[in-house]
Amino acid sequence: MSDPSLIASVDCGSNSFRLLVARVVETSHGKQIYPLDSLKETVRLAAGLSKDKILDDAAFERGLAALARFGERLRSFHPEQVRAVATNTLRVAKNAPLFLRQAEELMGFPLEVIAGREEARLVYVGVAHALPMADENSAPGRRLVVDIGGGSTEFVIGRGYEPELMESLYLGCVSWSRNFFRDGEIDRHSLKEAELAAQREIQVISRTYRQKGWEQAVGSAGTANALAELIQLNNLGNGAAAPQGMITREGMDALRAELLRAGNVNKLKLDGLKPDRLPVLLGGFAIMNAVFNELGIERMHTCDNALRLGVMYDLIGRGQSHDMRVVTVAQFQERYGVDRSQAARVGELAVRLFQSTGVVTGDELEAHLRFLRWAGDLHEVGLSISHAGYHKHSAYIVGNADMPGFSKREQAELATLLLGHAGKLPKLRAALEGRKQSRVDWIRIACLRIAVLLFRRRVEIELPPVELEVAANGFVLGFDGTWLDGHPLTDYTLEQEMAEWEKVGFTLKVKRLEPQA
Amino acid sequence: MSDPSLIASVDCGSNSFRLLVARVVETSHGKQIYPLDSLKETVRLAAGLSKDKILDDAAFERGLAALARFGERLRSFHPEQVRAVATNTLRVAKNAPLFLRQAEELMGFPLEVIAGREEARLVYVGVAHALPMADENSAPGRRLVVDIGGGSTEFVIGRGYEPELMESLYLGCVSWSRNFFRDGEIDRHSLKEAELAAQREIQVISRTYRQKGWEQAVGSAGTANALAELIQLNNLGNGAAAPQGMITREGMDALRAELLRAGNVNKLKLDGLKPDRLPVLLGGFAIMNAVFNELGIERMHTCDNALRLGVMYDLIGRGQSHDMRVVTVAQFQERYGVDRSQAARVGELAVRLFQSTGVVTGDELEAHLRFLRWAGDLHEVGLSISHAGYHKHSAYIVGNADMPGFSKREQAELATLLLGHAGKLPKLRAALEGRKQSRVDWIRIACLRIAVLLFRRRVEIELPPVELEVAANGFVLGFDGTWLDGHPLTDYTLEQEMAEWEKVGFTLKVKRLEPQA
Repeated sequence: MSDPSLIASVDCGSNSFRLLVARVVETSHGKQIYPLDSLKETVRLAAGLSKDKILDDAAFERGLAALARFGERLRSFHPEQVRAVATNTLRVAKNAPLFLRQAEELMGFPLEVIAGREEARLVYVGVAHALPMADENSAPGRRLVVDIGGGSTEFVIGRGYEPELMESLYLGCVSWSRNFFRDGEIDRHSLKEAELAAQREIQVISRTYRQKGWEQAVGSAGTANALAELIQLNNLGNGAAAPQGMITREGMDALRAELLRAGNVNKLKLDGLKPDRLPVLLGGFAIMNAVFNELGIERMHTCDNALRLGVMYDLIGRGQSHDMRVVTVAQFQERYGVDRSQAARVGELAVRLFQSTGVVTGDELEAHLRFLRWAGDLHEVGLSISHAGYHKHSAYIVGNADMPGFSKREQAELATLLLGHAGKLPKLRAALEGRKQSRVDWIRIACLRIAVLLFRRRVEIELPPVELEVAANGFVLGFDGTWLDGHPLTDYTLEQEMAEWEKVGFTLKVKRLEPQA
Repeated sequence: MSDPSLIASVDCGSNSFRLLVARVVETSHGKQIYPLDSLKETVRLAAGLSKDKILDDAAFERGLAALARFGERLRSFHPEQVRAVATNTLRVAKNAPLFLRQAEELMGFPLEVIAGREEARLVYVGVAHALPMADENSAPGRRLVVDIGGGSTEFVIGRGYEPELMESLYLGCVSWSRNFFRDGEIDRHSLKEAELAAQREIQVISRTYRQKGWEQAVGSAGTANALAELIQLNNLGNGAAAPQGMITREGMDALRAELLRAGNVNKLKLDGLKPDRLPVLLGGFAIMNAVFNELGIERMHTCDNALRLGVMYDLIGRGQSHDMRVVTVAQFQERYGVDRSQAARVGELAVRLFQSTGVVTGDELEAHLRFLRWAGDLHEVGLSISHAGYHKHSAYIVGNADMPGFSKREQAELATLLLGHAGKLPKLRAALEGRKQSRVDWIRIACLRIAVLLFRRRVEIELPPVELEVAANGFVLGFDGTWLDGHPLTDYTLEQEMAEWEKVGFTLKVKRLEPQA
């Protein structure tokens, strides 16, 4: 009955219960996890916890009803395929043992309460598998992960797949919302009070954590993802373009002003507000602001599903030593039947062209080259859908797929490169405008387009020396004129390419190099 | 060097030269062709043909330059992988032999002039493989294919993969545009004259063809596709929703009025006008109108790439006995790694539910059931991209992919079903509004959604008897109440489903049937 390649994790948080079913895919570099089905129930367990730490009947019932439903979905799973964990509210509730017994009966699998530090460790494992270490360079540095939950918040610092510092504090968006923002009311005073209360808790660890240090901060769980989405969708405090999946200091400040202006969370008029997030938004916001202030954070990446993914990677046994992104790219080439030799030819030539421009050097160059190589590896995934407009399909797939190891921002960036690697150029203006590095983006796109164009025959041909020079407002492609005379399609396509670049205000010139002696 | 699964066809028409490179995929029911790369050059060869049938130097040069470029793309192909054909202008040009010799030299493969009837046969083969026979029922009837080219127009009637009547007439959009609409000028008089001249040519065959009869008319080649696109994009004469890939009588009448109002084709303000189509649009329109009038056509499907596909299927050897759509669906399940047993479970239950409603009977029922089964077969193709929002990815794939055997309209219809099979319902309103059968569409979607919901566990379970009844403004799902009590997730999800239907103004009720004795 059961499919042995499937695994499931249940995460009974203080605010919501979630079930994730996933497929385990074996690759030559280890195992990867691809989500297949998920269920979420906002049971708000923490709201039913009395002062003397007793879960009330209503909360009991909401929680158990959700688990009974999960149980139906899990009925055909073997015990070794499932791990169910419960966090803070069930850690502290005195009548938790009764809940756990009934939960196991209804779900068919044991529900295991995990300690705060174990929760912190699992969250870290999830993040380490889901996100690349850094965006712009490959130096393996430290990462801070902050997981604001309904009843507790975990703080972890680690390097690679190994957590080094783990702490769990009694700070949660459910309790903070209940204690400081009755009925969703918010004013300068209550907000300050909530923030200070949170900051006091964080002070306990802030010195040690700051001493250890980190290069990248990541927020996981519902609060962080909801804040990043609000900031992005409403373009809060970010000037032209809000970075995807990122919480910024400016965004938090702008959101703070919006909250105070509204006076009540229910009067808030913002895009992307989800009804089940409203009751815990204010508490979550206050805690996040305290985290930013106390730890001196300016920008924070976000990661979805971290605890559930961590539980799963823990379940299948870790041991990945590779950059998960490399594994994912190889897996995608396989899945979409990519012609690997063509992909490698295009990627390598794009890399060579980019290097020849000399516009980027050092560590940053490495990051760009890696990105270009991936773009080459993946530029034809869309052919699996259709030849017509395949570059759009490639961008669609890379923009929407589950890609373990890649952040949403990286996927969006890669998708833009793929969208631009063929077809018309003006469509890219909107995507590139406002990006810090838009000049380098255009250059990367030019390298990729020229590489695709020169290898259109899809066979290993001996290209003459080729180089790209970046001029004031455009490019000069140095290429063997004699070779072009013998390759009329390439010559003609290069002319069309020049016309295309003119449409976006760049000039592309071909300098006919003399053949080398 | 060469990949033996690739084939190429070159089609040297009177208006444009085209190269199509495709991959041959072996399936258990025969071979299928999936386009991989294409080149098009608008050489307008017919415009260079003098009164005494001599191709002028400029036309010679335009044509040969295009073929030299194609030659670069084809350099690694073996002769048995390529077929290059030339049609009317090179059939009639007295200096064609010189052109053909030079063409072969530049391209590396012989260019073969084919007779008008052979062209007609190949166009028919292409259409037969690309389009389903009929939309609404499965009776294998006759099909009329009209291919208005630059220099000649082919008329074929056939059944299945076999052409029965084939004719080629000297009617072409290049010559008609040149002869009747100098400098793009158009008025009532010149248009009437052009239409009558075309009608006179068609009269030669109209009697025989009308006697033979057909159930479905299909237009192939550039003129037909350009007209269908203009009619659809500008919503010409179709009331609310313009059917995709279809030329309608009302659309032609509305376009006629637009052309006369503009007075010159270059002053035409319509969406989707392509610059390289403008010089031949008026001639093509006049011929198409004459076809509609003389053969009494009210609506015409369209098919892209027909001649090139026909050449390719001819090259690899035909012999398909199956409905090409069945082969394509199986091929897509394979390509996107669909869990076939889950797909079959869902499709069969959806079919059973639809039958139980009794809202459609006879031949039409068969067509609906086949469609529902395909929707079941394909509903999870989007999981290959991501679990989150996978129904949107399924709809994207089916809406955009090359699907041999399916018309664009069928793909759009299937995509709508897939988009609706999960997630929110209100998004479907726009897609379904204005469709003739929107009530039946909603019912099909309900059947599919309920089937997916009941099999969410993805295992073979014994479902109790289930039936769907269509009420005044909604549905009643008859289901065993006792079973529901033991399956709380299903019970809960059914309640959410009811709320979803309410959003689009339908009621979904569950009638708890008594278990059978």
